[in-house]
Amino acid sequence: MITHEQCCYWDEEDELKHLKDEFVLPEGVVYLDGNSLGARPKKSLAYAQHIIQQQWGEDLINSWNKADWWGLPTRLGDKVGQLIGANAGETIISDSTTLNLFKVLSAAVKIQAEKYPDRKVIVAEKEVFPTDIYIIEGFIDLINQGYRIELINGADDLAEVLASEVAVVVLSHVNYRTGYLYDMTDINRQIHATNALVIWDLCHSVGAVAMDLNQSESDFAIGCTYKYLNGGPGSPALLWVNAKHTEKFWQPLSGWWGHKKPFDMAQHYQPADSIRRYLCGTQPIISMSLIECGLDIFLKTSMQKIRAKSLKLTDLFIALVHQECAEFGFELITPLDHHDRGSHVSYRHAHGYEIIQALIARGVIGDYREPEVLRFGVTPLYLGFEDIWQAVQQLKAIMLHNEWKNESYLVRAAVT
Amino acid sequence: MITHEQCCYWDEEDELKHLKDEFVLPEGVVYLDGNSLGARPKKSLAYAQHIIQQQWGEDLINSWNKADWWGLPTRLGDKVGQLIGANAGETIISDSTTLNLFKVLSAAVKIQAEKYPDRKVIVAEKEVFPTDIYIIEGFIDLINQGYRIELINGADDLAEVLASEVAVVVLSHVNYRTGYLYDMTDINRQIHATNALVIWDLCHSVGAVAMDLNQSESDFAIGCTYKYLNGGPGSPALLWVNAKHTEKFWQPLSGWWGHKKPFDMAQHYQPADSIRRYLCGTQPIISMSLIECGLDIFLKTSMQKIRAKSLKLTDLFIALVHQECAEFGFELITPLDHHDRGSHVSYRHAHGYEIIQALIARGVIGDYREPEVLRFGVTPLYLGFEDIWQAVQQLKAIMLHNEWKNESYLVRAAVT
Repeated sequence: MITHEQCCYWDEEDELKHLKDEFVLPEGVVYLDGNSLGARPKKSLAYAQHIIQQQWGEDLINSWNKADWWGLPTRLGDKVGQLIGANAGETIISDSTTLNLFKVLSAAVKIQAEKYPDRKVIVAEKEVFPTDIYIIEGFIDLINQGYRIELINGADDLAEVLASEVAVVVLSHVNYRTGYLYDMTDINRQIHATNALVIWDLCHSVGAVAMDLNQSESDFAIGCTYKYLNGGPGSPALLWVNAKHTEKFWQPLSGWWGHKKPFDMAQHYQPADSIRRYLCGTQPIISMSLIECGLDIFLKTSMQKIRAKSLKLTDLFIALVHQECAEFGFELITPLDHHDRGSHVSYRHAHGYEIIQALIARGVIGDYREPEVLRFGVTPLYLGFEDIWQAVQQLKAIMLHNEWKNESYLVRAAVT
Repeated sequence: MITHEQCCYWDEEDELKHLKDEFVLPEGVVYLDGNSLGARPKKSLAYAQHIIQQQWGEDLINSWNKADWWGLPTRLGDKVGQLIGANAGETIISDSTTLNLFKVLSAAVKIQAEKYPDRKVIVAEKEVFPTDIYIIEGFIDLINQGYRIELINGADDLAEVLASEVAVVVLSHVNYRTGYLYDMTDINRQIHATNALVIWDLCHSVGAVAMDLNQSESDFAIGCTYKYLNGGPGSPALLWVNAKHTEKFWQPLSGWWGHKKPFDMAQHYQPADSIRRYLCGTQPIISMSLIECGLDIFLKTSMQKIRAKSLKLTDLFIALVHQECAEFGFELITPLDHHDRGSHVSYRHAHGYEIIQALIARGVIGDYREPEVLRFGVTPLYLGFEDIWQAVQQLKAIMLHNEWKNESYLVRAAVT
């Protein structure tokens, strides 16, 4: 039997508890949606003021040099790199995850086409966040060279599908709905054994799960900075390429930021001799700069400590729902095994949408994903054990009093 | 003979002079680089604070609905649309100009491929801002379907090149270096007479030159929001599609923001029945939102009034350089004819780079573009006639005293 007292004790003992002070959260809220939009780092406000008043307003175009706006994609890329097992110079921040997938997919397909021209299959998961599928479809349709997408149920199907015709596999490190976490090293080995290449979508793992892209011998990776990394709404995305692939090919979104000598205004494209060739056009400097406030908090601790706390918190969430809410029909769809679990916990319930609305009305912010999934994101940097206790107590109260049976909760918001 | 007194009088008579109060500019600076990075609207600071504190920090994910983050691309697109002769629902703000060119180029090429499969030439200008060429090269290389780029010297060459094999023509409405302005209506007619399609790059004209994309029967347009529109450093770009083309094709950068039902998490892409199909991934909300501060200033006046003042200011600049600096060897490369002139004035000079550095040291901020071009952007919203007088007086003083012969000015900055 887990008690409130026990949760408070764990908070006292928590060696990351001081990091909560780096964030601003609304009064009385338990925020379990950091896997959708990360909370705001305190420093972001003063930093935005500095960028707007000093860099933009006073220094104007001189900020391209003075504030090194031009260097932001690689400078911030290297900070993210420290969280994902990248070496310096292997990671950029730029554009969106979807666009970055188009870039690395193009590169991966080109690399494969040269060695294995008959491989025409791109594998992705049915249950991946669908923008990955959409961009693969757009790519295949555009190039019109006989490629096709094959959708699998999950990595368990890989053995079956990985025949000689697979060129590239796109996988989500942590599934956005179930929270299922893949073993990168094992899966890379399996994919490479058949000479296919892998692209990892890190949206739901970067900043929440420890990983090592180089040690695991990954090929390409992309991911969000506005979820666990707390970069701000829609902040630009990360892109990582294994150094052995970086300079092999142009990526086709070849804008002037990726040029070898961008200020020569040369009449033909020549890609930079570095990861900068994965840049395209001018970046949104304010949204990009603010990512640093979130990253600097991560650099005060380690991904190992963050991961350890994340597992304790998700363990607690699962245990408390089992203890307090067993009678209400929540079906856990997140793995119990630590080896397979990311940093969010999801349940299926026929009234998931209304229950999430009722929870939000009580100040517990989770979210809902079709079909019937209640999703609770656990961000170790600003969540404590007592927060989890409160969240489950509110859930129990809602279920006991049928609070979710409220007509207003049946009205779906435009954006869910 | 133009006098200082005369310039001050023109300022008094200027019916747009009150709009200067909407901007913050550094003390003692004459800012002639608004065609590279527009000045900061005063309201941007308080608005950024609101977005960061309230929308991000307090309302968190609820802001997707409450602050209509999701609707920003079309809501702001419609505001830009009022400046370019677009109807509501035809314009979005999203991603970068370079990426938006990739989207509309893909669409234009696909439309043409269906009707005229043998047309395999994409025409662009040699002297266009080169990112346009680079992305066309990337596109051609990616699809590998026999397309080729043909570079022309300018629209005068169009008659010669526009044979039956041209599919698409990409043109800069105002040339970034010379300030040459094309007559959209005339050129569209010429291009359409041969059944080619046109893409206009508005980077150096939107917010400075009156235009009507519909009346001129343009096909596609893209452009910056961080130059004359004062949207903030690297703010996302505009994309306009003639309504007759919008729903004809997917564009291949088909991310979830362009999906017909993005929150259904459907397993296959289905493009939105609107200009939203030109969206791709999640947008940088803070950089995007701040564009509105700049746009709202435009909506207090009209593009006709802005254009009239712009021409008076560039006329004055040219006349004063002629009057005060005739002996110093500046070669005007911007057209004298109003019909052909955008909103910046450029001169060629062998010591252009050093002269620009010396001017900046005196508080007159212009910029330099290879080869040997001094560029002076004229932004009617915050520049007056006396500003132009001061700028030319400083230029004269630098030349008279050989101030540009300073060794430190020979050191090129990383970003020029």
